[in-house]
Amino acid sequence: MPPGRTRRASTMHSEFGLIRKLRAQAAQPDPQVFKGIGDDTAILKTSSTEWTLITTDLLAEGVHFDPTTSSFRDIGYRAAIANLSDIAAMGGTPRFMLVSIAIPPACSTTQIQQRYRGMTEAGTPYRVRLIGGDTSASKTGLFLNITLTGVVKPRQALLRSSARIGDLIYVTGTLGDSRAGLDLLTSRRRPKLRPTDARFLLGRHHRPSARIAEGLWLVRHGLAGAAIDLSDGLTGDLRHICEESGVGAEIIAGSLPLSRACRAYAMARGLDPVEIALQGGEDYELLFTVPRGQQLRFERLVKKTGFRMTCIGSITPKAAGLRLRTDAGATRPLPLTSYEHFRRPT
Amino acid sequence: MPPGRTRRASTMHSEFGLIRKLRAQAAQPDPQVFKGIGDDTAILKTSSTEWTLITTDLLAEGVHFDPTTSSFRDIGYRAAIANLSDIAAMGGTPRFMLVSIAIPPACSTTQIQQRYRGMTEAGTPYRVRLIGGDTSASKTGLFLNITLTGVVKPRQALLRSSARIGDLIYVTGTLGDSRAGLDLLTSRRRPKLRPTDARFLLGRHHRPSARIAEGLWLVRHGLAGAAIDLSDGLTGDLRHICEESGVGAEIIAGSLPLSRACRAYAMARGLDPVEIALQGGEDYELLFTVPRGQQLRFERLVKKTGFRMTCIGSITPKAAGLRLRTDAGATRPLPLTSYEHFRRPT
Repeated sequence: MPPGRTRRASTMHSEFGLIRKLRAQAAQPDPQVFKGIGDDTAILKTSSTEWTLITTDLLAEGVHFDPTTSSFRDIGYRAAIANLSDIAAMGGTPRFMLVSIAIPPACSTTQIQQRYRGMTEAGTPYRVRLIGGDTSASKTGLFLNITLTGVVKPRQALLRSSARIGDLIYVTGTLGDSRAGLDLLTSRRRPKLRPTDARFLLGRHHRPSARIAEGLWLVRHGLAGAAIDLSDGLTGDLRHICEESGVGAEIIAGSLPLSRACRAYAMARGLDPVEIALQGGEDYELLFTVPRGQQLRFERLVKKTGFRMTCIGSITPKAAGLRLRTDAGATRPLPLTSYEHFRRPT
Repeated sequence: MPPGRTRRASTMHSEFGLIRKLRAQAAQPDPQVFKGIGDDTAILKTSSTEWTLITTDLLAEGVHFDPTTSSFRDIGYRAAIANLSDIAAMGGTPRFMLVSIAIPPACSTTQIQQRYRGMTEAGTPYRVRLIGGDTSASKTGLFLNITLTGVVKPRQALLRSSARIGDLIYVTGTLGDSRAGLDLLTSRRRPKLRPTDARFLLGRHHRPSARIAEGLWLVRHGLAGAAIDLSDGLTGDLRHICEESGVGAEIIAGSLPLSRACRAYAMARGLDPVEIALQGGEDYELLFTVPRGQQLRFERLVKKTGFRMTCIGSITPKAAGLRLRTDAGATRPLPLTSYEHFRRPT
């Protein structure tokens, strides 16, 4: 779920607290449910040869997307990527999409079609089929709900709960680009950037990639322990891994993969690019763990692919919490707040 | 999808027109898809012993539900019934539910929990499991999206497209009660009704039934041709059957099953109860066809059950359109407008 722009500190209840409550309410066991509420994606033991993944995301205009900074087509594209990324994080193959849309009076048919075009564009490389949905009226903003199914071989799905102490932490791609791109779009005074860098950052914001191929590769080689996709930002999503696995983590600031454009942006703004990488959401890169004993094999295999996968730290005991090791060698706690998108205004 | 209260005539585009366009766009064949866009529910050929049904509905505050006339718990209940009813119409067994909710700032945790309680209450008789979802912020009203899966034996799902000329048309239960209940809630001057009648109508509005048992029974005995659930009102939903099957239909006004309470309500209001039955939405009864040659067997079998199933007309050639036979023996076209909920204000 992309976190969007309106994030405020909460004093009342957070998304994660609410999900925990609901999970407790719904915790009747069912022999077909391998993973229910808690992960972004449920896993159903549908047959002896194939398990089904199913994920759903509800996006609200003004919260998760903003028609003043994104085209309707890009809004549809990113909405689909958010769901594709959930399937990628489990190492699954995406299959079918259902799209519900609540349309305000001011919205034209062309605008709606552009959103659908964006959604189908995002799914086309993976042969995702739009098989259903719902259209209805909204009195206020536009709301878009995507449900996406996928498949994975039995017991092969990557989970958040499989991280073990000593595992190495990797991420795909580079971090913080989408956030820098969004800042470029929304800030009144644009920093001076090379046009190629600005284009790169905007492209990473408007048209992020879902790391489907990377997830499938990790599953095929049996290399990854836990995995999650970075939708809420590295800090927030790493926290999910740590909570679900009952561990801590140490991230090495100097190892975070940053694009040239993101570095240039941070410099022009006078910001620390590490902070952008840690807090920026909607990267849709994968974060995953690799058992330390597998590191050499893993690194050797990665070299044969075109994938960028960077070791950024390691899993520690739970008591150590989530920590950041700075270039000077000191460690400090990673900020506890993640970019949860369900926050009450203070 | 329940049609709700804000229905206005459209000059621009209708839900059905939009769905048709999107269906055309998405019409790449896929060997696993038995039914894609068009029906409320998609059918996937997931295994040789079991096919999967999947349906999704997005409900908007002020359009599909109104917190001033329904409790939060009843809103959740009805939202789940709308989806359960889609599975019932195919003769399926409901299985898993995913709930996305976009929550406005003014909404308390208790109110949200009440909605979830209503949803799980509706699913409990059928052992439906809540397996996932999404929570996020809304700047405006509350939006609720439910995705529900179900199962059916291969090739046994009831479809909208299987009506044949000469088939008899049946409905379960009684029609128009939910609409009468809603009118009771929203009209300024309440008509004089016996308290038991008022309670019955309000109950039918707040806590409608999904006809799961009836759908399963129809499939088990192989008696039904086409089927649909009455969410938009008899006229609108019958039109779906006729369009998908390429046929017409004649409804006999005097045969429409009306509750005593609905008749009493119509009389107190000076309304024709037939109109309420034809146009009222959210009954969630099933409408289905039975081949004329099966009528005797069907009627004999129904008597052994506790089900109320009433013959209300027959399928005619397409050229005849949708017609209503009045008590005087004359026929007139059924009004073309159904209660589509996606309408632009005029």
